[in-house]
Amino acid sequence: VDPFVRKLITEWRKLGLPFSNEVFVVALSGGADSCALTMALKELQERQKLHLRFVLAHFNHGLRGSAGDKDEEFVRNLAVKFGFEIVVKRGNLSSVKSNLEENARNARYEFLAEITENLNAYGVLTAHTINDQAETFLMNLLRGSGTQGLSAMKPIRTLKQSSQRKILLIRPLLRWAKRYDTESFCRKRSIEFRLDSMNEQMNFTRVKIRKKLLPLLEEFNPKIIDVLARTARNLASEAEVSSELLKNFVSSDLRIRDLKSVSSALRQAVLRAWLEKELGNLKGVNSVHIEAIEKLITSRKSGRIIELPKGICIEKKAGKIYLYKN
Amino acid sequence: VDPFVRKLITEWRKLGLPFSNEVFVVALSGGADSCALTMALKELQERQKLHLRFVLAHFNHGLRGSAGDKDEEFVRNLAVKFGFEIVVKRGNLSSVKSNLEENARNARYEFLAEITENLNAYGVLTAHTINDQAETFLMNLLRGSGTQGLSAMKPIRTLKQSSQRKILLIRPLLRWAKRYDTESFCRKRSIEFRLDSMNEQMNFTRVKIRKKLLPLLEEFNPKIIDVLARTARNLASEAEVSSELLKNFVSSDLRIRDLKSVSSALRQAVLRAWLEKELGNLKGVNSVHIEAIEKLITSRKSGRIIELPKGICIEKKAGKIYLYKN
Repeated sequence: VDPFVRKLITEWRKLGLPFSNEVFVVALSGGADSCALTMALKELQERQKLHLRFVLAHFNHGLRGSAGDKDEEFVRNLAVKFGFEIVVKRGNLSSVKSNLEENARNARYEFLAEITENLNAYGVLTAHTINDQAETFLMNLLRGSGTQGLSAMKPIRTLKQSSQRKILLIRPLLRWAKRYDTESFCRKRSIEFRLDSMNEQMNFTRVKIRKKLLPLLEEFNPKIIDVLARTARNLASEAEVSSELLKNFVSSDLRIRDLKSVSSALRQAVLRAWLEKELGNLKGVNSVHIEAIEKLITSRKSGRIIELPKGICIEKKAGKIYLYKN
Repeated sequence: VDPFVRKLITEWRKLGLPFSNEVFVVALSGGADSCALTMALKELQERQKLHLRFVLAHFNHGLRGSAGDKDEEFVRNLAVKFGFEIVVKRGNLSSVKSNLEENARNARYEFLAEITENLNAYGVLTAHTINDQAETFLMNLLRGSGTQGLSAMKPIRTLKQSSQRKILLIRPLLRWAKRYDTESFCRKRSIEFRLDSMNEQMNFTRVKIRKKLLPLLEEFNPKIIDVLARTARNLASEAEVSSELLKNFVSSDLRIRDLKSVSSALRQAVLRAWLEKELGNLKGVNSVHIEAIEKLITSRKSGRIIELPKGICIEKKAGKIYLYKN
């Protein structure tokens, strides 16, 4: 067995995915990553390691004319070669619209969710690699999307809550495969994957990160892809621990004594988490409100009640703070 | 008053620094940043906003021969021009040694701490800017120094605990000034600061980040310096909140019931914080030990006591866990 295939089945086990009696949709663009994933799944099926039904799914955005049609032709031939079912959808996105990339992604994910629901499948498999993790981290960092946005993509997340069950988005290559691995596995099996398939061309920032920025970063550190992906993963798990600790803190009544004994930074974080729990979200809550509640807690002189917008009142009573609506 | 000078006094107030009856040491390399800081302090002194004694400090590493001597001559002339006292030290670092940059930095900080202690000064002022914050963030990110290493430099930290008092390292430009601001303030005052002074040349990675990487990143986002500095600051404050929450969690006895009700990620973080509190540090503690304690907590079948290296025992008793040494 090729190491690529062996690593895939190991990850399959680690992710707790089923080995039989299920349907999986495989997102196939025609690039090296998704071709390698498709081939490896085929080999695991042939070797009786996986007793699953795989349905390939290709979205032809209809934006590149003949190049897009060649991608489609290529994946159709691949499906025939491997004996997999395939579903192709042609989009009718207009290339003049703004937010082209976002529209294309939304249309693609809607298509994937729809097939998965129709087939009552377990989930969608996408071929994101460590490289995608690193590139996404850089994109979010450069965009300034806040520390939450720097958190890593996860190997499994919910794509959609269907009427019957949760539709999962599964990335079985994300934690171990690099683009180099997918390309060399394709070459070993003489699969001439499509270069610059639509998905890759769509985002000019991502392409520039890949072609220009990452080569420069590699001059600083040859292991930069791993470093960035690991950083994203660590930030994600620290954020989870922190958010769970905050939820823990606000799970019971908020005692003035406890709130007084912590730093202002922590007190503000706790108050935000508490308001989010009580109100469902933090819409319309800003730092002025948080500071007003802080003053209610820490100052003896301040009154007993303060009023926030939308008739929300915060009251200090019997050593605790309460929220109610007027 | 020039906006540069006004912003400095505003920050001085925000940082809670004294306005009179104290001595401050000013680290002066001869570059634009430290020249701008020195000039602005002089103007605040002349305008009677600050009634403080400033002593300039310049470290001549003795590594560049005549170029280093020109830096020294330049800062000596500047001191005469401004009527400030100046202390110069010539180092005898060998350029063939490894870790040249680290040795130079250590020698420089030792020198600064020594003067500060001799003068019984309040602290050392350095001229780090938002650009330094952004560059340091990138250096640590590229080096893969872990999420802790991505946290921002702080405007005030302890440089050394002297016998008499805490010696502070203060960065009064860090939160508001960019290199552009220091350079243009120098130009306004016709101060011909030294280009590529020793400190700037010393770190080739930092120079390459400044000259090659940041210009490329600016093509992605013209505000990249601000974005990176803000990211570093946000990561620092989130890390502080998280570490305080963990300390809070382990400040009282660890109850099995509480530990069972949280996620494994949080449980492990809590156990690490608890061991660090009990043992003073985490030397010799690795993930195998953490997982063993976790099993003690979550599994009914496991025994009552487990032994870690160095005779450290963890015991489950009366619904709590305890640590003692054999």
